[in-house]
Amino acid sequence: MSLAPSFLAPWRSSLAHALHRNRALAYARYLQLATINKNGAPANRTLVFRGFLAGTNHLTFVTDTRSEKAEQINHNSQGEVCWYFPKTREQFRIAGRLYLIDHQHRNTDLQASRCATWQALSDAARAQFTWAPPGQPKDAELTVNGFFPDPIEPLPNFGLLLLEPLSVDHLELRGDPQNRCRYLRQNDQDSDLTWLTQMINP
Amino acid sequence: MSLAPSFLAPWRSSLAHALHRNRALAYARYLQLATINKNGAPANRTLVFRGFLAGTNHLTFVTDTRSEKAEQINHNSQGEVCWYFPKTREQFRIAGRLYLIDHQHRNTDLQASRCATWQALSDAARAQFTWAPPGQPKDAELTVNGFFPDPIEPLPNFGLLLLEPLSVDHLELRGDPQNRCRYLRQNDQDSDLTWLTQMINP
Repeated sequence: MSLAPSFLAPWRSSLAHALHRNRALAYARYLQLATINKNGAPANRTLVFRGFLAGTNHLTFVTDTRSEKAEQINHNSQGEVCWYFPKTREQFRIAGRLYLIDHQHRNTDLQASRCATWQALSDAARAQFTWAPPGQPKDAELTVNGFFPDPIEPLPNFGLLLLEPLSVDHLELRGDPQNRCRYLRQNDQDSDLTWLTQMINP
Repeated sequence: MSLAPSFLAPWRSSLAHALHRNRALAYARYLQLATINKNGAPANRTLVFRGFLAGTNHLTFVTDTRSEKAEQINHNSQGEVCWYFPKTREQFRIAGRLYLIDHQHRNTDLQASRCATWQALSDAARAQFTWAPPGQPKDAELTVNGFFPDPIEPLPNFGLLLLEPLSVDHLELRGDPQNRCRYLRQNDQDSDLTWLTQMINP
């Protein structure tokens, strides 16, 4: 993964426009992330978009490192998010590589980003990381802790999740005919400078 | 796939309740389907829920058989839908096997369902199946046809897509703590009668 400063990818302006025009809907920042589970089957769940990693085109999310999703990503880093914007009736499909930045990650810049993301969360969102292990059978003994953890120092099970986009498919349902545009990153190394943009049939 | 009449799976009432309470939002019937593409990477896109196949717990959708998704499903039938309901703030993840019923499918009951689904579509939805091959580079020569096809007899590229659920994960974000329930189909043959229901940590 390159952390060198990169120019905005050509799909960024369309996505920024969609986010702006749908800003009245809190759930316009929710999207679905597909990964592959340990049995080779697809898995899919809703995540909250937490903005772009500064100076890059990488999308950021948060996750509990005890979740099935974290295990899946450590095993297979491929992912595709599907992001539907209800008000403007458009969809972005963003495929790429996932990186889980946990408390042991050695890159100091990414560790700083992990801390900053923790600090930007609400108290309620941080409190979820004090809960019992997600996905495990509910145990009356292991009730929800429900305390508010330190707002500065992340809990060890707090993970910053990054998606480095390699292809983007933008579909606009409005219009007759509909518009669909595909963006492919050409250079798999070093930079985000080169993208191929192509109009395709909807 | 069993087409024998089956009892409603235990998660059906929760899903029916969510559909009812979110009925004012047209896009509450939109969900995201994850599949695996030919390179083994996850793919993810928005589909419209078209109801349950009569007498079963199978979800129905429509698709163009010329789409990448159809090719993916013929190669790997595993899928998971993620269905988020904005108004009630709950999510269903439904994993199972996908079946594409195309114009050559030999089961007469399923072929009848395919025709009935075609007939229930709007003119505008049917017209999309007259468009140029989806996902191909846009060609000025191959413009959108834009005619309204026969409302009775489906076009050959019209596919009925079925998802036979094998596991369901229902998360309710409202409530402190949140509720999460997992349903696993126990009998992989013959019937949908036996489901294991378990409360798990959110």
